[in-house]
Amino acid sequence: MANSKYEYVRNFERDEILLPNTWIVVRIDGRGFHKLSNYYGFTKPNDRRALRLMNRAATHVVGSIPEITIAYGVSDEYSFVLHRGTTLFERRKDKIVTTVVSSFTAAYVLGWNECFLEGKEGDLESTAEGPVKGAPALTMEMLPTFDGRAVCYPSWENLRDYLSWRQVDCHINNLYNTTFWALVQQGGMTHVAAEEHLKGTVSGDKNEILWSRFGINYNNEEEMYKKGSVVFREYALEEEASTRAADDVGEDTDEGTGISGPISKTQAEKIRKARRKAKVVTKHVDIIRDEFWVQRPWLRSGKPGRPVEEHTES
Amino acid sequence: MANSKYEYVRNFERDEILLPNTWIVVRIDGRGFHKLSNYYGFTKPNDRRALRLMNRAATHVVGSIPEITIAYGVSDEYSFVLHRGTTLFERRKDKIVTTVVSSFTAAYVLGWNECFLEGKEGDLESTAEGPVKGAPALTMEMLPTFDGRAVCYPSWENLRDYLSWRQVDCHINNLYNTTFWALVQQGGMTHVAAEEHLKGTVSGDKNEILWSRFGINYNNEEEMYKKGSVVFREYALEEEASTRAADDVGEDTDEGTGISGPISKTQAEKIRKARRKAKVVTKHVDIIRDEFWVQRPWLRSGKPGRPVEEHTES
Amino acid sequence: MANSKYEYVRNFERDEILLPNTWIVVRIDGRGFHKLSNYYGFTKPNDRRALRLMNRAATHVVGSIPEITIAYGVSDEYSFVLHRGTTLFERRKDKIVTTVVSSFTAAYVLGWNECFLEGKEGDLESTAEGPVKGAPALTMEMLPTFDGRAVCYPSWENLRDYLSWRQVDCHINNLYNTTFWALVQQGGMTHVAAEEHLKGTVSGDKNEILWSRFGINYNNEEEMYKKGSVVFREYALEEEASTRAADDVGEDTDEGTGISGPISKTQAEKIRKARRKAKVVTKHVDIIRDEFWVQRPWLRSGKPGRPVEEHTES
Amino acid sequence: MANSKYEYVRNFERDEILLPNTWIVVRIDGRGFHKLSNYYGFTKPNDRRALRLMNRAATHVVGSIPEITIAYGVSDEYSFVLHRGTTLFERRKDKIVTTVVSSFTAAYVLGWNECFLEGKEGDLESTAEGPVKGAPALTMEMLPTFDGRAVCYPSWENLRDYLSWRQVDCHINNLYNTTFWALVQQGGMTHVAAEEHLKGTVSGDKNEILWSRFGINYNNEEEMYKKGSVVFREYALEEEASTRAADDVGEDTDEGTGISGPISKTQAEKIRKARRKAKVVTKHVDIIRDEFWVQRPWLRSGKPGRPVEEHTES
Repeated sequence: MANSKYEYVRNFERDEILLPNTWIVVRIDGRGFHKLSNYYGFTKPNDRRALRLMNRAATHVVGSIPEITIAYGVSDEYSFVLHRGTTLFERRKDKIVTTVVSSFTAAYVLGWNECFLEGKEGDLESTAEGPVKGAPALTMEMLPTFDGRAVCYPSWENLRDYLSWRQVDCHINNLYNTTFWALVQQGGMTHVAAEEHLKGTVSGDKNEILWSRFGINYNNEEEMYKKGSVVFREYALEEEASTRAADDVGEDTDEGTGISGPISKTQAEKIRKARRKAKVVTKHVDIIRDEFWVQRPWLRSGKPGRPVEEHTES
Repeated sequence: MANSKYEYVRNFERDEILLPNTWIVVRIDGRGFHKLSNYYGFTKPNDRRALRLMNRAATHVVGSIPEITIAYGVSDEYSFVLHRGTTLFERRKDKIVTTVVSSFTAAYVLGWNECFLEGKEGDLESTAEGPVKGAPALTMEMLPTFDGRAVCYPSWENLRDYLSWRQVDCHINNLYNTTFWALVQQGGMTHVAAEEHLKGTVSGDKNEILWSRFGINYNNEEEMYKKGSVVFREYALEEEASTRAADDVGEDTDEGTGISGPISKTQAEKIRKARRKAKVVTKHVDIIRDEFWVQRPWLRSGKPGRPVEEHTES
Repeated sequence: MANSKYEYVRNFERDEILLPNTWIVVRIDGRGFHKLSNYYGFTKPNDRRALRLMNRAATHVVGSIPEITIAYGVSDEYSFVLHRGTTLFERRKDKIVTTVVSSFTAAYVLGWNECFLEGKEGDLESTAEGPVKGAPALTMEMLPTFDGRAVCYPSWENLRDYLSWRQVDCHINNLYNTTFWALVQQGGMTHVAAEEHLKGTVSGDKNEILWSRFGINYNNEEEMYKKGSVVFREYALEEEASTRAADDVGEDTDEGTGISGPISKTQAEKIRKARRKAKVVTKHVDIIRDEFWVQRPWLRSGKPGRPVEEHTES
Repeated sequence: MANSKYEYVRNFERDEILLPNTWIVVRIDGRGFHKLSNYYGFTKPNDRRALRLMNRAATHVVGSIPEITIAYGVSDEYSFVLHRGTTLFERRKDKIVTTVVSSFTAAYVLGWNECFLEGKEGDLESTAEGPVKGAPALTMEMLPTFDGRAVCYPSWENLRDYLSWRQVDCHINNLYNTTFWALVQQGGMTHVAAEEHLKGTVSGDKNEILWSRFGINYNNEEEMYKKGSVVFREYALEEEASTRAADDVGEDTDEGTGISGPISKTQAEKIRKARRKAKVVTKHVDIIRDEFWVQRPWLRSGKPGRPVEEHTES
């Protein structure tokens, strides 16, 4: 074929394969969201509509990629966790990362109007601020975009620590931002003055400022703001699940090897389908302590749990 | 800070830096676009609206990332070329690839309605098929998404060969598709029969089938279908530009080294601004032969050319 | 300094950092050892002197790099295992691999004469073949060299499977080679005829050939040939050590995270020194079953064990 | 086969392929050579025997790997350049780097005695210091080893700048060391005092110190010390070779693409053989200016030159 003369250029392509048997975290970050949030008039310190749009986009991504075990989001970032045993796209890094980034972006852009403009109150939960009818429509001049990266974590403890890192960060930033904007919006300070005021303060100081000057009890702030958002497939909770899931013991299972082992292709496809059907939920809960994980062993094992009988969302 | 206990997880992150002084090509591909084009009823073999939407999204990407020298698109794929001297995002691969993918996706999704629904005829140029008013709106069930990858090419000739490879591919595929769909749509063949009919045929055979059976002269097909689309910043054409641009000679310039060398930061920023202001155009022309490149030395040198005096778009 | 004009070339250097908290295996392989073994007249199928030279070189490498937990060798290859928690050379791949390869090569070349020429019988153990006095001295025309690579294994089970893979390979190859050379040396077959004769045979067939035709009971072959060689630091064996070492449990230790955590630098240096002092031994034993590992928990934990009281080498 | 259960561990192996059509530089460095040079009593600031041993090892490596175009050495480091068109080991990085490191190490260890102990005066050229008969033989306690790394350079200018960087470094370090050791050995200063004395001095200052205090004209120092050592295949010099070699022009050759193109396998093997036969020489000359390269166009083109008629070594 005439093309053969040029086809040698394919030899310059490289596929990076993510190390098997490691947890893959794809983290996406909003690009220039500080500027974007000003442009579109996001509410400070937290814009409920914008956060819910993030959560919807994440729910779409989790729902459409069954290999994603759990996702955690805060502010304009989201982390998607793929199970250590996944062979999605043969674990090709670029393919995995760009698929997540593109899916998230598409869902975010398409969902924008619904979250910001149409004001389906019931859907958005009743809230003081509510959907702002006058929010500007998306324009090509200021498109929301996200960059992304993949990181591999070899042990369950590493993965847990990663997610704890993000949730602690959420807490630290939200406490700071809540106090900062109280000083600015209610205290009448300039941005610079508020920043100066908070320099060197610890958590206790900020809680005290909020309470004594503005009557705000930080503990009563919305869970979504304080805890971030956790998106995952929900099954029936288990009361006494062991924290030691199969993948680290390995004596009686092949999971510790990162290969599907005795699981046939038919079984794998069956699991994939079961995951597709499972309900994807969004919670604003602590994921640092063990409780969340003990009750949901399927997050670690990668195997579907028992279907939820009754609706028990928080 | 309390977070320090978990922050070690950052040590698992890796940044791949693309080799300096190489041309970077980011190629994006539509994911599952065969299915998607059926779902949304794209015209076969070419849907003018869909191609123009690709071109608009590419124009947005080129316009918003001045480091992109040229882009070439065909069907549901687009290749973006960053100049060998670029230091965009310190040449971090993930950042570059995901930024292009996310920007393209956002522009594609936001531009969908305009290209498919609103039917701004003048804008779309007059065409037999015209904007189809009844095309379905985008839904979350079938979001257009793109994956992407970056490839480095060390020499100008490698880069040219890459682009030639894509344009030859465009020709081969379009000739095949044009004949295939003529057999199906006008010849009443089933897909299988048409495929069988074309097995083993060479270009001449397909041209003959088109002409003798359907009175179609392939040469008269639209340039956008035959040549694909080239998106770049336009300056005044040069009549006798040398094909040997500075970067391969290197004796009298620092460009052959891939570092900005004597160019100060101020100068670099000035060039960046000049590039931002330049008009981004879309052409459907041959980029395999030298002529295109000889007339546009700025594509190779990375330096802005002379502004276009009069509007000379094709 | 005048050099600054050229120093930009350092920007083209890349350091690949091996993923933290994974077991690192550096495997080296003799280059062209088939030809080399003919050139220097190695005994077939196994040359005791050559294998012992491999083991001495490996012992030197393990002894001089305390971060190596265990090494396993067969034929002209050796695998060196670095503990998952190691930060040797900041886990830079090239540095780790080339240091092992270079150290092994240097020790192999320097040790050649002692193993092949000088005939210290006692040192070499008494053996039928004995040191061949007339073996040619090493020449520049046929230097023994080794290539190498590093592979990361995320779980203990993966590492165990890697080592089992090598030991099973040792068994398969040695049984084949023993039978092949019996057919050639004792049975008077040509190489081609022997190869043809063994085509399609399973283990049982080869054992049968050895026994019925040559009166060889494969089980009585030397352990070094059948099992390969295991090189590691020996401490007092433990009777009932748990197989669940700290790194996979992680609740009560920081080891599961791959960071040194609460271990101070002083402590780390102390451990390093203890490891330097420990006796490095070479055994020819089964490392597929658990027993070997259960008795030597220090291999998994990376912590020094109790010093050996009495000399208990096999 | 029984081994199949474990063979999955091969999936964790990765081969990094060096970008095609780039110059590959493998640089090796002596590990802990400061300590080693004290241990074996190397002459300071330069030990002629040790440098010649480096050169011999390098000559062996260049001679046994025809894909190496040129090598440059200074002190305990050596850089080996593989032609941009090479496909040695399919350009697998680990294989290339470890082969060079292992070959160099083996040749260095095997050559030690000849260079240090045996005192072949004629071979070592007559010199004031001469071979020191009493130099200690190599021992396992202090083995010379080398680490290594590979770097890719996309353009000829980058490669030239890399080599210039090393040669400038040689000059800077040698001038410093010559002055430092003159102050210590002839001036009776302590190491600390000499170091203090040289702090902040420029080249002119050091030349002045050497001349005025010790009567040393730095220009008369040995070329090997001042310029380092260049090892390459020698052919008949060309008087007026063009500096623009084929690989950057590319119009009339396929070399600019990094693929062998029209060169048949037979031809390639023929070239390989011709290179094997060519004489490998060691020079101590300037490689920063163009002259060296203009006279030896084969270094850039990768094609064998005309055989040398008469012996013209410097």
